[in-house]
Amino acid sequence: MSKSYTLAELAKDVGGVVRGDATVRIRRVCGIEEAGPEDITWIAHEKYASRLRTSRAGAVVVDRHFGETPMPAILCDDPSFAMTKVLARFAPPIPQPAPGVHPTAVVAESAQLGHDVRIGPHVVIGERARIGDRCVLHAGVFVGDDTKLGADCVLWPGVVIREGCTLGQRVILHPNVTVGGDGFGYHFRDGVHHKIPQIGTVEIGDDVEVGSGSCIDRAKFGATRIGPGTKIDNLVQIAHNVEIGPGCILVAQCGIAGSTRLGRLVVLGGKIGVRDHISLGDGLRAGACSCISKDFPAGAVVNGIPAVDNQQYLREQAAVRRLPEWSAVLKDLVKRIERLESAADNP
Amino acid sequence: MSKSYTLAELAKDVGGVVRGDATVRIRRVCGIEEAGPEDITWIAHEKYASRLRTSRAGAVVVDRHFGETPMPAILCDDPSFAMTKVLARFAPPIPQPAPGVHPTAVVAESAQLGHDVRIGPHVVIGERARIGDRCVLHAGVFVGDDTKLGADCVLWPGVVIREGCTLGQRVILHPNVTVGGDGFGYHFRDGVHHKIPQIGTVEIGDDVEVGSGSCIDRAKFGATRIGPGTKIDNLVQIAHNVEIGPGCILVAQCGIAGSTRLGRLVVLGGKIGVRDHISLGDGLRAGACSCISKDFPAGAVVNGIPAVDNQQYLREQAAVRRLPEWSAVLKDLVKRIERLESAADNP
Amino acid sequence: MSKSYTLAELAKDVGGVVRGDATVRIRRVCGIEEAGPEDITWIAHEKYASRLRTSRAGAVVVDRHFGETPMPAILCDDPSFAMTKVLARFAPPIPQPAPGVHPTAVVAESAQLGHDVRIGPHVVIGERARIGDRCVLHAGVFVGDDTKLGADCVLWPGVVIREGCTLGQRVILHPNVTVGGDGFGYHFRDGVHHKIPQIGTVEIGDDVEVGSGSCIDRAKFGATRIGPGTKIDNLVQIAHNVEIGPGCILVAQCGIAGSTRLGRLVVLGGKIGVRDHISLGDGLRAGACSCISKDFPAGAVVNGIPAVDNQQYLREQAAVRRLPEWSAVLKDLVKRIERLESAADNP
Repeated sequence: MSKSYTLAELAKDVGGVVRGDATVRIRRVCGIEEAGPEDITWIAHEKYASRLRTSRAGAVVVDRHFGETPMPAILCDDPSFAMTKVLARFAPPIPQPAPGVHPTAVVAESAQLGHDVRIGPHVVIGERARIGDRCVLHAGVFVGDDTKLGADCVLWPGVVIREGCTLGQRVILHPNVTVGGDGFGYHFRDGVHHKIPQIGTVEIGDDVEVGSGSCIDRAKFGATRIGPGTKIDNLVQIAHNVEIGPGCILVAQCGIAGSTRLGRLVVLGGKIGVRDHISLGDGLRAGACSCISKDFPAGAVVNGIPAVDNQQYLREQAAVRRLPEWSAVLKDLVKRIERLESAADNP
Repeated sequence: MSKSYTLAELAKDVGGVVRGDATVRIRRVCGIEEAGPEDITWIAHEKYASRLRTSRAGAVVVDRHFGETPMPAILCDDPSFAMTKVLARFAPPIPQPAPGVHPTAVVAESAQLGHDVRIGPHVVIGERARIGDRCVLHAGVFVGDDTKLGADCVLWPGVVIREGCTLGQRVILHPNVTVGGDGFGYHFRDGVHHKIPQIGTVEIGDDVEVGSGSCIDRAKFGATRIGPGTKIDNLVQIAHNVEIGPGCILVAQCGIAGSTRLGRLVVLGGKIGVRDHISLGDGLRAGACSCISKDFPAGAVVNGIPAVDNQQYLREQAAVRRLPEWSAVLKDLVKRIERLESAADNP
Repeated sequence: MSKSYTLAELAKDVGGVVRGDATVRIRRVCGIEEAGPEDITWIAHEKYASRLRTSRAGAVVVDRHFGETPMPAILCDDPSFAMTKVLARFAPPIPQPAPGVHPTAVVAESAQLGHDVRIGPHVVIGERARIGDRCVLHAGVFVGDDTKLGADCVLWPGVVIREGCTLGQRVILHPNVTVGGDGFGYHFRDGVHHKIPQIGTVEIGDDVEVGSGSCIDRAKFGATRIGPGTKIDNLVQIAHNVEIGPGCILVAQCGIAGSTRLGRLVVLGGKIGVRDHISLGDGLRAGACSCISKDFPAGAVVNGIPAVDNQQYLREQAAVRRLPEWSAVLKDLVKRIERLESAADNP
C-alpha cells in the first residue's frame, strides 16, 4: 500500500544525479542506522560519513563532492534541502475535514466563508468573522467575532482565536494554540491589582506557523504583531504589544515579554526569556536557555543569564569551570604573600 | 463607527483637568510614536518626555506637575491608572455567547445554573456542578462534576476544570487553561512508578485571573489554593498542594513545585522556577528566569539560579563579568610571586 | 456521606499493624497540621516527627521502628507507599462519561471501538482509528485518522492526538495535551524557512502518563517514542524524533529538543532544557532549571547551565557565592605584590 519511487524519480525531484543503480525502488525515508534495503537515507555532514559503511540503506543522498558510497547515491548541491523534497514525496496526505461545513459546527450567519473551506465538527465561528478560501479548520476550533483569516490557513483542533484578530495567508496554527487572549496588565493601587483593559488585537503575517500550546496575547491597544514567514515552536509565550519581524525562529518554550521588538531573521534557541520593552536587532542569535534583559544590535550573538555577547559568555563560562581550582590558587597566593611580607619585615 | 469622546469627557472619567483645547475629539489610544491627531497617548515616566516633541498625538495624559506639552493634555495624579480608565472607555464590548444555554451544550440535569448565565456552544457541565449568576462560559468549556463557580466568572474556550473544584466570584480563566488535572505524584518501588491517587481538589479565590494555557493541578489531598486577587499569566504551572496567598503576580511560564507556599503580594517575574515544599514570605520579589530553591522571608528581593539576595546577586554578576580579566590577573600574580620568591631565595 | 474506615481496615490494606486503638474511625487523609480526630496523617521522614506532638490527627502511619506517638498508629515498612494505598481507599470515583458513545460525538464509520468504551460529548474520532477496550475519552477529545489506542487509556478533555499515532495500554493524557503536532523543522534557503514535511508519527508505551498542556511532536520520519512507564508532568515539550526510555520522570516545563535520546529511568527536574541530538544515559539525574547541552553517561548526576557534573556544579556555585569577597582579596593581593616588588627594587 505504501508508495514507492525509483532512485531516478527521486533524483529528478531534487535536481540531483544518480550514481549507481537508478532503478532501485525506495519506499521509506530513514536514519542511517535504521534504514534497510528499501529505504533512502542522507548524509548532511561529512562527520556522519563513517556511519555509511555499516548502513543497510538502499540509497543515500549526499553532496555532489562526496566520495564513494557502499550503495547507490543521489548527488546534489544541498542534501538537507533535497531531503525536504524527498520527504514531501513520501508524505502521506494530511487528513482534513470533509469539504464544506460539518453539521455540528456553529457558524454565525454574519460570518463569511471563502471558497472550498473545510470546517470540521464542533467548530465555532463568530459574528462577522471571515474565513479565507481553502482554509481548513479542524474539529473544535474557535474563531471569535470579527476575526479574519487569509486564504489557505490550517487550524488544528483546540485552536482558539479570540475576537478581532487577523491572520495572513497560509498560516498554520498547531493544536491548542491560543491567539488573542488578554495581555497581562494590571495597575496596583490601594492593595489591589486593577485589570487594565486589553483593547488591542493580534496581527499574524503570511506563512507564519505556531506550534502546539503556544500563546500570543492581544495588545493593550494597537496590535501584537508576528511578521511574515516567522516560525514559532511549541509552548512559546508572546506577550501583549510584542512586535516580531519577518523570518524569525523562536524555538520551544521561549517567552517574549510585553512591548519588546524583534527585528528580521532573529533566531532564539529553546527556553529563552526576553524581557519587556527592549529591542533585538536583525539577525540576532541567542543560545538556548538564555535570558535577554537589554537591547542588542543587529547581528549580535548572545548567550547567558543575563545574556551577554557570546564570546564574553564563553570566556566567562570557561572561567567559572575553573573557579574551584582558582579558589585553591588564591588561598595559596595569600599564604605565599604573607610569607614574603613577613620575610621582608624580618630580613 | 468607532466611538469618540472629547478631551473634557475623558478628563472627567479620570478625575483630571484639561490644559489646552478640551473639545478635541479622541477616537483611539495609541503609543507616543504611532498616535495621530485623533488619538490620545500618555507619559508614564519623565524619561519618555522627549518623545512628545515629535509626536502627532491629538492629546496626552501626563502627571499634574508635568511641563509644557505640544498638544492638549489631561493633567492627573497617576497617568498609568488614568489610562486604565481611558482604555476602558474605548474598550469594545467583549463578545459573549447569547444569554441562556446554547442548544449544543451538554448540561447535566443535576447541575444548577444561576441567573443570567451564558453557556456557549459545545460546553459540557457535569453532574451537580453549580454555575454562579451571570457566569459566561464560552464555546467548548468543560466543567466537571461537583465543581462550583461563583458569580460573574468568565471561562474562555478550551478551559477545562475537572471535578470537585471551587472558583470564587469574578474569576477569569483564559483559553486552554486547565484546572484540577492530577498532581504529579508517584511512588517508586520495584522499578515501577506507582501512581499516587490525587484525591484533593483546587480552590481559587475571588478576582483571580489565569492566563492562556496555564495549569493548576489538584491536590494529592486537601486543596491546591490560589488566594483572592492573585493574577497568573500564560503557561504557568502550579503543582499539587501549592498554596498561593492573595494579590500575588506570577508572570508567564513560572512554575511552582508541589506543596510550596507563597505569602501575600508575592511577585514572580517570568520563567521563574520555585522548588517544592518551601515557603516564600509576603511581598517577596524575584527576578525573571531565577530558580528559587529555599525559603525566603517576607520582603526578600531575590535573583539568580539558585536565587540569592538580589544585592548579593548583583555583586556576583558584576564579578562574573570580570572573570575573564581576573583569569589573566591571577596568572600574572602567580608569575610575579614566583619571581619574588625566587629573588628572596637567591638574594 | 463520606466513606469511613477503621484503623484496623486501613492497616490491613497496607500490610501494617496497629498500635493503639484499632477501632478509631477515619474519614479523611490530611497533613500533620490540618488533621483532626477523624483524619489519618503520616510521617515520611523522621525530621517531621516533632510536629506530631501538637497534631490533632486521629491516627498516623509511621515506620515500623518509629517511637511512641500521641495517637494510634499504623506501623509499616514504607509509610509513603502505604499512603498511596490509603489515598486509594479514600479516592472518590473518578467521573467518566456514560458507557457507549455520546450522541454528540462524531465517530468515523471506519473507526473501531473496543468493548466497554466511554466516548464523551463532542469527541471526534477519525477514519480507521482504533480505540482499545475500556478506553475513556472525555468530552471534546480529538483522535485523528489511523491513530491506535491500547486498552484502558484515559484521555481528558482538550486532548488532541493527530493522525497515525500509537498509544499503548493504560496511557493517561491529562487535559489539553497535544500528541502528534508537526515537528519544528525548516530548511533556510534564499531568505525563506522552507517547511520540512514531518511525515513520521508518535509511539507512546504502556502506562505512560502525560500532564496537562504538554506537547509531543510527531517525527520528521520514523517515530518520536516514549518508553513504557515514563511519567511526564505538565507543560513539557518533547520535540520530533526524541526517544525516551522506559520509566523516566520529566518534571513540569522540561523541554527535550529534536532527536535526543534518554535512557531508562532518567529523572529530569522541573524546567530543564535538553539540547538536540544528544544522548543521556540510564538513570541520569538532573537538577531543576538546568540546561543539558552534551552527552552524559549512565548514572550521571548533573546540574547547571550548561549542566556539568553535580559535584563540580556545587563547587562552582560555592565559589560564585564568594566572588564578591574574592574581588576584594584579589585587589588587595595586587597592591601587596606591588609593594613587595617595589621594596625588592629599592632594597
